[in-house]
Amino acid sequence: MKNTFGNSITLTLFGESHGDVIGAVLDGLAPGIKIDIQHIREKLDLRKPKGKISTSRVEGDEFSIVSGAYNGFTTGTPLTVLIPNTNKKSSDYSTLRAMPRPSHADYTAEIKYHGFQDPRGGGHFSGRVTAALVAAAAILDSALISHGIYIGSHISSLHGVSDRAFGDIKEDVRSLSVSEFPALCAESEEKMKKLIEEAAANGDSVGGVLETAVVGIPAGIGEPWFDTLEGLLAHGLFSVPGVKGVEFGRGFGFGELFGSEANDPFIMENGRVVTETNNNGGINGGITNGMPVIFRCAVKPTPSIFKEQSTVDLTAKENACLKIEGRHDPAIIHRARAVVDAVTALVIADALTVRFGTDYLADCK
Amino acid sequence: MKNTFGNSITLTLFGESHGDVIGAVLDGLAPGIKIDIQHIREKLDLRKPKGKISTSRVEGDEFSIVSGAYNGFTTGTPLTVLIPNTNKKSSDYSTLRAMPRPSHADYTAEIKYHGFQDPRGGGHFSGRVTAALVAAAAILDSALISHGIYIGSHISSLHGVSDRAFGDIKEDVRSLSVSEFPALCAESEEKMKKLIEEAAANGDSVGGVLETAVVGIPAGIGEPWFDTLEGLLAHGLFSVPGVKGVEFGRGFGFGELFGSEANDPFIMENGRVVTETNNNGGINGGITNGMPVIFRCAVKPTPSIFKEQSTVDLTAKENACLKIEGRHDPAIIHRARAVVDAVTALVIADALTVRFGTDYLADCK
Amino acid sequence: MKNTFGNSITLTLFGESHGDVIGAVLDGLAPGIKIDIQHIREKLDLRKPKGKISTSRVEGDEFSIVSGAYNGFTTGTPLTVLIPNTNKKSSDYSTLRAMPRPSHADYTAEIKYHGFQDPRGGGHFSGRVTAALVAAAAILDSALISHGIYIGSHISSLHGVSDRAFGDIKEDVRSLSVSEFPALCAESEEKMKKLIEEAAANGDSVGGVLETAVVGIPAGIGEPWFDTLEGLLAHGLFSVPGVKGVEFGRGFGFGELFGSEANDPFIMENGRVVTETNNNGGINGGITNGMPVIFRCAVKPTPSIFKEQSTVDLTAKENACLKIEGRHDPAIIHRARAVVDAVTALVIADALTVRFGTDYLADCK
Amino acid sequence: MKNTFGNSITLTLFGESHGDVIGAVLDGLAPGIKIDIQHIREKLDLRKPKGKISTSRVEGDEFSIVSGAYNGFTTGTPLTVLIPNTNKKSSDYSTLRAMPRPSHADYTAEIKYHGFQDPRGGGHFSGRVTAALVAAAAILDSALISHGIYIGSHISSLHGVSDRAFGDIKEDVRSLSVSEFPALCAESEEKMKKLIEEAAANGDSVGGVLETAVVGIPAGIGEPWFDTLEGLLAHGLFSVPGVKGVEFGRGFGFGELFGSEANDPFIMENGRVVTETNNNGGINGGITNGMPVIFRCAVKPTPSIFKEQSTVDLTAKENACLKIEGRHDPAIIHRARAVVDAVTALVIADALTVRFGTDYLADCK
Repeated sequence: MKNTFGNSITLTLFGESHGDVIGAVLDGLAPGIKIDIQHIREKLDLRKPKGKISTSRVEGDEFSIVSGAYNGFTTGTPLTVLIPNTNKKSSDYSTLRAMPRPSHADYTAEIKYHGFQDPRGGGHFSGRVTAALVAAAAILDSALISHGIYIGSHISSLHGVSDRAFGDIKEDVRSLSVSEFPALCAESEEKMKKLIEEAAANGDSVGGVLETAVVGIPAGIGEPWFDTLEGLLAHGLFSVPGVKGVEFGRGFGFGELFGSEANDPFIMENGRVVTETNNNGGINGGITNGMPVIFRCAVKPTPSIFKEQSTVDLTAKENACLKIEGRHDPAIIHRARAVVDAVTALVIADALTVRFGTDYLADCK
Repeated sequence: MKNTFGNSITLTLFGESHGDVIGAVLDGLAPGIKIDIQHIREKLDLRKPKGKISTSRVEGDEFSIVSGAYNGFTTGTPLTVLIPNTNKKSSDYSTLRAMPRPSHADYTAEIKYHGFQDPRGGGHFSGRVTAALVAAAAILDSALISHGIYIGSHISSLHGVSDRAFGDIKEDVRSLSVSEFPALCAESEEKMKKLIEEAAANGDSVGGVLETAVVGIPAGIGEPWFDTLEGLLAHGLFSVPGVKGVEFGRGFGFGELFGSEANDPFIMENGRVVTETNNNGGINGGITNGMPVIFRCAVKPTPSIFKEQSTVDLTAKENACLKIEGRHDPAIIHRARAVVDAVTALVIADALTVRFGTDYLADCK
Repeated sequence: MKNTFGNSITLTLFGESHGDVIGAVLDGLAPGIKIDIQHIREKLDLRKPKGKISTSRVEGDEFSIVSGAYNGFTTGTPLTVLIPNTNKKSSDYSTLRAMPRPSHADYTAEIKYHGFQDPRGGGHFSGRVTAALVAAAAILDSALISHGIYIGSHISSLHGVSDRAFGDIKEDVRSLSVSEFPALCAESEEKMKKLIEEAAANGDSVGGVLETAVVGIPAGIGEPWFDTLEGLLAHGLFSVPGVKGVEFGRGFGFGELFGSEANDPFIMENGRVVTETNNNGGINGGITNGMPVIFRCAVKPTPSIFKEQSTVDLTAKENACLKIEGRHDPAIIHRARAVVDAVTALVIADALTVRFGTDYLADCK
Repeated sequence: MKNTFGNSITLTLFGESHGDVIGAVLDGLAPGIKIDIQHIREKLDLRKPKGKISTSRVEGDEFSIVSGAYNGFTTGTPLTVLIPNTNKKSSDYSTLRAMPRPSHADYTAEIKYHGFQDPRGGGHFSGRVTAALVAAAAILDSALISHGIYIGSHISSLHGVSDRAFGDIKEDVRSLSVSEFPALCAESEEKMKKLIEEAAANGDSVGGVLETAVVGIPAGIGEPWFDTLEGLLAHGLFSVPGVKGVEFGRGFGFGELFGSEANDPFIMENGRVVTETNNNGGINGGITNGMPVIFRCAVKPTPSIFKEQSTVDLTAKENACLKIEGRHDPAIIHRARAVVDAVTALVIADALTVRFGTDYLADCK
């Protein structure tokens, strides 16, 4: 379905970049989940623009929960988060509609919505909309943590600069949750920030790869057809602006391996079945095997760059030159990680609820 | 939803590797689509095992359409394809249940289904089940072709051996549809086959990357959230056995690019808006832009290898050695392409029907 | 799905009686539907409490459309209506939670939500929530009217007092749309209002039957299994607070008829196929036949009455006496008609969009 | 969705009256439900034609379960039931397509499917298709019984003849499950059968009302919006051929009541909260309250009667006379009860699985 996602727990997303408000409705929640306002705040902060490596449009992200919460707990009825848009700049968007930005959604929106779309700041396509998603999913994230399930993402590579791999995942995830910039290694962080700043200075932008880990998810979650956990996650992740690839475990690296190298041998460890390696990223046959779920998302460079670009004038139906202005991110990958984590929390919480019933997320272990 | 996939057009998949029959129910079809039995036959043949590079279990794939068709056309009511399993070998599967094959679904099935799953030949997880999917989707493929939409996949790389890139896509797709082995370049084909045969000789298996093109799809198909065309395709594609990664256009390659390199400039071509490059694989903001949709799937090496492997004995709860026997594919990528094409046809046909209504696929241009 | 309803066009409902705001997200809309603010206002007014025959809680229903609209037209992205709750009275609801009102949702909410539900004024179960539904559906209603489809409901009977039957349906529907009280005959209206006032004076409440007509819907809408138009409508209508029965055409009257009396003969009329009678309420085999769709909803007396009632004390686990106070409707049927019309507009608009594609509602005839 | 129904447990129905086979795919089942072949047989027998009060077309209903079962238990993967059509008579259906039977789906099918529908014996609209639904749902019924949940229906009235009301529901349901004709009182049964036989003798048909009870369902099942248990049940029940009305508890009788008469007082009974009366049919606010769920379905007289009827000739576009031949039921209500029970089992099993998770139905109490 269109702007609603999930099976038992669903999230409905609405709003436009320069509208009054953006928001999300989270439905199918267990009653009695404690709402941790501070946790929501922190998640929103991870998504916020940061200094020179981000857009200069900074929003307060003052959210309010206007339904589905009572006395600090979820009621079990739809929970709605609203976030007003405050830092809007009015400008003339008619040029933009006539001259679509390359690789942006301007042109496809024009075709799909016949010109009725809200063009201001990307409208409903804007990454701005993800703030509501991040806020709502933070409530699920709290509940997952209380069930021993931890989710976190780092930039595994950015234009040739690699971060170190996940080590003690639970510890790494904890450290990422308080890092403004999602790198595990301080040296990589410096290099990556410098790359982004250079791109910004050149009026350009830069892409990269995010790596996400989910630790603590029980075995047996997912379906063979068609709701594989991979398929459910990918379905949601491709909505994160800029994501153009999703791979699990060794992913595209499998194409270079023999089965004897790729297979993850089972072994007993403290009476528990585990795998020696985790090439499959914790999923076999679409179903979790109890190992950490590991996946990577390719994030393309933001298409809004300040360099002059070729485009077409849709009104005159002729080729044209475009030089855009305004406030844009030279990279979104460090902000996208909060959105990737949010989608992941949503998919995992939903899959667990389908499997174990609608009270599951509120149950304490 | 579990074994049903799609919004307006849905496919429901059932059956087990060694059960009586596998099948698929295709619902939401336009009435009046001509059923091309020969086209179904050809698609099934592309999926069939081939000589030394495949399993020795060869099935007749004698399908029958038992509902939803009348006088050679779809009726508009659910169309069911049944394919009997004929070449079954009885053997003792109790060992397999106790000693799960590494990286296979044996262990996750055991956990999810508490030991009630049909363990024979992988049961419902078996690639065998995809025959029904391929047969049913061939009907959609016919209808898409009559609307000028062509789908095809080749092995873009296999353990270091690359095929040439797509050129004239429509022509390439046509040639792939009659090639037993999905390579565009004869030399690559030879090398790839040799690699698979060598892996087979070593009791091993090998993975690779499939590249798929969809040409002729109109602009404006897909949603910004959450039913991006990328998300819909990926959701289905991760059900194809062995697929562990999906990327669109430059995909993970975007991580190495600047925006100025990555963006696809618009230009006018014969009065039509096109893009000069197609780094985005025909999709912007989740919505088709009228250029060919291009994506790649990572296919892991088949986990069933003949080399001795470490696993656990679930009954004794101790480490164990496993040496499997039986009939297995040293690679499935050359067969998986038919399944990838089938899932693609299903997703595209569904998205078009959501957009243009339930009669669309039968309408003639 | 829970608080989201529809297939191609969906409505998501949120909010509680005494929360900050109630709202609805309408998704899957065609871009370019003109938003008629006055029409929304009128529909909300039909739902509003009216003098002595309604509760004394009167809300301003000052709605705002915070997403999905631009320059007076739908954008095609999710349209959100928010309505603040202003006339709230704080009181002690702990008694109510301990002593559930008979035939109200107090007890079932307590069981389902384990005491975490918002108990104030019925919370999410309150008829208050329907204001958002009515406002959102009014946009669909406008679009349907521009396609020649008209929806309206009258009270066909109220505690023994019958209204006249539908005559010229289009004319009747038009007259109902401007009548504060939904009766077609002035005399019936007087009697019905008197009955409600008497019930109110006795601290009691009264039920009745609503009859709805949809005129102008094309033939061929609906499915044989399971999305019969009857099933889709009934699914939604049973959410309207107080509805306990739904029947189409002769409905329960069919139980007294022979087939020869019940069948609707086809005849040609001005080159069009129509039926002489309309016992089937415009639906055969789940699919519209082009005649007006006619159905009736049984609406039970509001359970909140001022007479003393038996209930249980859930805390003490013993029988108890309950005498409720506050502001309550002695009948809701005259207000429920606006909600029934709203659900009907939603279901019809959705079914047409599934059938004819996502642009349909914006197309002009 | 079209021919698939349910949320967590889904049933997909396919086949045509005179096709090779009809069938159903039941998905989302817990693994480890014992398959009671005898129970399926008995349920199919309740649906079978019976002597003079039914059609002379008698089918063997030799079903086979071709997937999803292993060693006598459900596997947890899709379970498919196939039932071949054996007693088919070939005849010329071109007349029927040109001259639609009044109140049958002939005309609406023609419009919806543009003449591509299978017209033989009603095709996919035929009551024949319900055999597969009954067989599949019998597996759910077994599982519900092992959880203490019992479902049964009787004819509460047939053309003026009433049956006695439910008394000891569990006992009544048990007795109905072994009665060929679903009446609780022997005298009513005789009168009803006589009425049907007389209608048959006159070339006519007769309608009636079915009353269904579900006993043992726990409190707290259903949603306030939009998946009320009433809405879910009604959605499915309107697919049962001939059903034109669904009411819960007092249903349309509520229209004659004051709130003080209609409300169901709560009382404590052996430490359990129950209601003194059950006017609401066990559902408040869309959610079960722990009392038996009671509803009634209006079943119209079968439209296929032997008396001459007015219709139109669609080819000539003129009025015409129709006198049909073939094998038809003078009443279907006594057979429909098995279908109503099947839909009820499906909806209840699904709602419980959504609430308590996918293993629920296999869990033993």
